[in-house]
Amino acid sequence: MLRTNLGLRIPKGMRDLLPEEISVQEGLEERILELFKQWSYQKVLTPTLEYSACVQPDVEQEDSLYKFFDREGHILTLRPELTIPIARLVSTRMRGGEFPLRLCYGADVYRNSNVRHREFRQVGVELVGSDQELADAEVIALAVEAMAGLGLKNYQFNLGHMGIFAGLMLETGIEKELQAKLEEVLARKDMVGVESCVRQSGLPERVQELLLRLPHFRGGEEILDEVLGWSEQPAIQHAVESLRKIYQYLEDFGVQANVSLDLGILRGFSYYTGAVFEGYVPGIGFPVVEGGRYDDLYADFGVPQPATGFAIHLGNLLEQFPIPVVEGADILVYGSDAKEIIRRCRELRAQGKRVEMSLGVLGDEKAKSMALQKSIKEILRV
Amino acid sequence: MLRTNLGLRIPKGMRDLLPEEISVQEGLEERILELFKQWSYQKVLTPTLEYSACVQPDVEQEDSLYKFFDREGHILTLRPELTIPIARLVSTRMRGGEFPLRLCYGADVYRNSNVRHREFRQVGVELVGSDQELADAEVIALAVEAMAGLGLKNYQFNLGHMGIFAGLMLETGIEKELQAKLEEVLARKDMVGVESCVRQSGLPERVQELLLRLPHFRGGEEILDEVLGWSEQPAIQHAVESLRKIYQYLEDFGVQANVSLDLGILRGFSYYTGAVFEGYVPGIGFPVVEGGRYDDLYADFGVPQPATGFAIHLGNLLEQFPIPVVEGADILVYGSDAKEIIRRCRELRAQGKRVEMSLGVLGDEKAKSMALQKSIKEILRV
Repeated sequence: MLRTNLGLRIPKGMRDLLPEEISVQEGLEERILELFKQWSYQKVLTPTLEYSACVQPDVEQEDSLYKFFDREGHILTLRPELTIPIARLVSTRMRGGEFPLRLCYGADVYRNSNVRHREFRQVGVELVGSDQELADAEVIALAVEAMAGLGLKNYQFNLGHMGIFAGLMLETGIEKELQAKLEEVLARKDMVGVESCVRQSGLPERVQELLLRLPHFRGGEEILDEVLGWSEQPAIQHAVESLRKIYQYLEDFGVQANVSLDLGILRGFSYYTGAVFEGYVPGIGFPVVEGGRYDDLYADFGVPQPATGFAIHLGNLLEQFPIPVVEGADILVYGSDAKEIIRRCRELRAQGKRVEMSLGVLGDEKAKSMALQKSIKEILRV
Repeated sequence: MLRTNLGLRIPKGMRDLLPEEISVQEGLEERILELFKQWSYQKVLTPTLEYSACVQPDVEQEDSLYKFFDREGHILTLRPELTIPIARLVSTRMRGGEFPLRLCYGADVYRNSNVRHREFRQVGVELVGSDQELADAEVIALAVEAMAGLGLKNYQFNLGHMGIFAGLMLETGIEKELQAKLEEVLARKDMVGVESCVRQSGLPERVQELLLRLPHFRGGEEILDEVLGWSEQPAIQHAVESLRKIYQYLEDFGVQANVSLDLGILRGFSYYTGAVFEGYVPGIGFPVVEGGRYDDLYADFGVPQPATGFAIHLGNLLEQFPIPVVEGADILVYGSDAKEIIRRCRELRAQGKRVEMSLGVLGDEKAKSMALQKSIKEILRV
């Protein structure tokens, strides 16, 4: 049936990958997954569709989810990320495994939002079953190594901790609703929103000042000492000591120079509970790596386990790499006798050659121009 | 938030892949795609989501599609197959390419139906821009080689032609509705349905007999001579001559012994117009390969091109292969000094070793049992 209008178009936020584009994306993914394997992470894969009841409670941007019914009338969601689906998997078929578990994945995720890509590739890891700062440091160091392994320069990681904001909030006895609003504007680094939200909060003047300074609190280990002086709230003290240990380990991993402390980081998913981090490369205005500790999520699945991990947004990184010309076959076999063409193609393929078979009768000139057009190295007339 | 009920479950028809399962699926896919590459097919990828207006007109099983709205209010469909999306891609970004185009893919497809798998992996090819029987033979031979390349035994292909049924129908001037009903029961090989449908059709006795015999018309080239005698309808004459040529080429390709003629094949997608085929392996009650010629589809996208291709249902094949034990890391590094553990891990990784780092303080016994549990070959105390 003749297509018109939408029938001819690719949906908004989607993209096709041509041979040269797919070779870049697969090449990057392969290199990253090979690195994960070197660090003893094993690949798993969850389905594209999950029950909303599984994914949704911990994914805040509800209106960015693709949701619909299956034929039994249950609401399904296209996975917006892999951390929760992997928690479901580990809590069921893998709960008898030896923890800590190191798992990794490469998969498409879906967000029905206004951003440029609504389907995009993520590769990432989950390290499940350790509450040690060494585990946080391992995944951060691995994320940095992944950027380095791709040959990227000037990537920069920021490291923060959910406990500092949470501690400040605990001190004030703030209402849940206002806290959520504050957290949202801070996570978006919407400074106008932060200013207005803080000024209307009715919080003590001292806390207001600290909240306004939070997004600008970036640097090396020295900033931790200052934060310690802010408050005796145990959550804040614990967060600072935890960051100090992690930051020290990052030096041992040889990646500290790529990581700044940034106390203004509040990651967008509600499941984060501890150290959180994000990675940037020049020219891309949003994080290409996002990760952190989420110690409460597994309890929600009945298998309490501390965990940490990260995801790399591969789709966003693609544009950092040149698109190569895709190589054609080694040889084009043409002529007028189909039987003979088939015979020679079989012979050459048996020798390991990549062979393109001519399907119609082809003259020498046409064969030459076709080979040129398709980047085929050689032609053979039979 | 605590999960209950559906929140803990994987949706019906979906599955998770554990490390050992994913290694099998990826291994099979890699081998098949490598073969496609040898035959000069280039990989493309279309998005998971398409506008329904693109996919639906040619996909008949409407109630097996996952459909929902995007935020602009357009109806989206999870791709039920790749042939139509690739036609959309070729007709847009690739229309300036040198035809014939040989394209291949590995992707998940989605059917919201009652069958066991609602998400499953397909690998396949599309050969676009040739109406030659040599093209049909090429893709059939490639499908057979793919089964052989996986080390499968006793696979069997059936080859038919849409033109025989279509020709019989043309002869009778049958109503569209009845024809569609007949086609459906024949495609499903629902012999009770065929019998009842044919007997109530009011078609001439002779055509009724031929329709009833159609599903049993299987064998070698000899059956073609008999069909020629059925009717002088040009569509039938053309179909028979076309099958004869293809079958001859299959001998040249060395795969004829694996292919039977089967005039009862009517593939389930409405876009097929010519030679159609399906592949079976013992122990799986439905085709693991489905393909055929579809010469009208590209015209619907404004770029008339004859085309043929096939898809292999990889998910169904998985169960034919033993699930291996996944190898763990080469070495587990443990001890009580984190700094030293990190240092040794870095050193060993730089040597190309796969290294698992212990995160807590571990005794020798615990390290040994962990290594055993995780199939790690060696342990190193630092």
